[in-house]
Amino acid sequence: MPKLILVRHGQSEWNEKNLFTGWVDVKLSAVGEKEAKRAGELLKESGLKPDILFTSKLTRAIQTANLALENAGLAYLDVERSWRLNERHYGALQGKDKAETLAQYGPEQFKTWRRSFDIPPPEISDDSEFSQANDSRYKLIDPAVLPKTESLKLVIDRLLPYWQDTIAKQLREGKTVLIAAHGNSLRALVKHLDNISDADIADLNIPTGIPLVYELDEDLKPTKPSYYLDPEAAAAGAAAVAAQGSKK
Amino acid sequence: MPKLILVRHGQSEWNEKNLFTGWVDVKLSAVGEKEAKRAGELLKESGLKPDILFTSKLTRAIQTANLALENAGLAYLDVERSWRLNERHYGALQGKDKAETLAQYGPEQFKTWRRSFDIPPPEISDDSEFSQANDSRYKLIDPAVLPKTESLKLVIDRLLPYWQDTIAKQLREGKTVLIAAHGNSLRALVKHLDNISDADIADLNIPTGIPLVYELDEDLKPTKPSYYLDPEAAAAGAAAVAAQGSKK
Repeated sequence: MPKLILVRHGQSEWNEKNLFTGWVDVKLSAVGEKEAKRAGELLKESGLKPDILFTSKLTRAIQTANLALENAGLAYLDVERSWRLNERHYGALQGKDKAETLAQYGPEQFKTWRRSFDIPPPEISDDSEFSQANDSRYKLIDPAVLPKTESLKLVIDRLLPYWQDTIAKQLREGKTVLIAAHGNSLRALVKHLDNISDADIADLNIPTGIPLVYELDEDLKPTKPSYYLDPEAAAAGAAAVAAQGSKK
Repeated sequence: MPKLILVRHGQSEWNEKNLFTGWVDVKLSAVGEKEAKRAGELLKESGLKPDILFTSKLTRAIQTANLALENAGLAYLDVERSWRLNERHYGALQGKDKAETLAQYGPEQFKTWRRSFDIPPPEISDDSEFSQANDSRYKLIDPAVLPKTESLKLVIDRLLPYWQDTIAKQLREGKTVLIAAHGNSLRALVKHLDNISDADIADLNIPTGIPLVYELDEDLKPTKPSYYLDPEAAAAGAAAVAAQGSKK
């Protein structure tokens, strides 16, 4: 039966600085590199053998996959990358300090931007230094399709076509698929797989660097609850993510 | 016009130990990682912007590409991997010490195995610990096609179909293509591109970690001599490779 393994990238240079990142292409921090290598060890110990890798087009997810797979002896996996696996576009918040944003706009507005299902932050301007309007990695994509801000709902809308057309195809062939992506693109996918309501998804936090495994039937429905390869570390990691919003 | 950039992987753990490697999947040494990062710096300084990456299925070439592209801000490139870009299969010599092999078989036989155009070493046995007969990364490939030893001629025979069908297609679309591969698979390609004779190719040495650039016309013929992004380092590197055969 098909298996799906999700891994959220480790700490990035901007997670470390507590900035809204979104589509800004920052690298892993030294801590993030360690998390990625640990993900590779967990994968190796689990005996799971992914057949193919999918990543976003963002360096921090790609580095996480590269380091994890090198450590698991699986560097040779075929790989496909898509902007549809990118992190949620944070609009005009990209590049802003989270604590300053919280202080400036207050906890209600802050929580709405971070956790509401369908209210996106204001759009980013094309001439912002944190805009991706002129990023050559997206040059073959219709500019009308590329987001300038996103809610989680909009992430789901642009992610599901790639899931249905491309990733699901590999799973239906019985393959084991690894996806290296981001907090919100993975929350979008988990919401779909576990049929989580628009309200409940706000409370779901995915920890960094710990592979999350789905065992699926032929209709790609989970045959049992998904599980983390290191459940204790995952619980601690999810609590840390949940606490981020209140970080000063 | 299309551009082709070739990069040979940096020093591996077995280059360091002076063992015949071939298809044995060893990692880069610390020196090799530095060479890979330097390749990325050279690429960045050159202003060349690859559109797509091709690698072999061997970790040392993949690591070289990963580190170089991360350093060049190009980690997001689409990538295809093929065993047809792998290093020459060294047959029964895989895993053997080069100096011991030279002492045991004498300089004539040693040079023949290393540099003759069409005489391969003896085949490796499927039950050798250095055989790839049961390597799961090749499980979808007809075992009749997978080599058990190769001459440079046999490398050319298995590489050119991939060049003609897959890599050339990208170049014909006007793309800039980066290939991260190995001493002998790159010699095979350079022989084809520069129309080098079977005799003269014996003297061609490609240095590690220094991008080699071809500017091509629409028939994929070079419009001028190929050039290294760091010509001085390339000359020193090629001399070092040439000297390897006589290393004690």
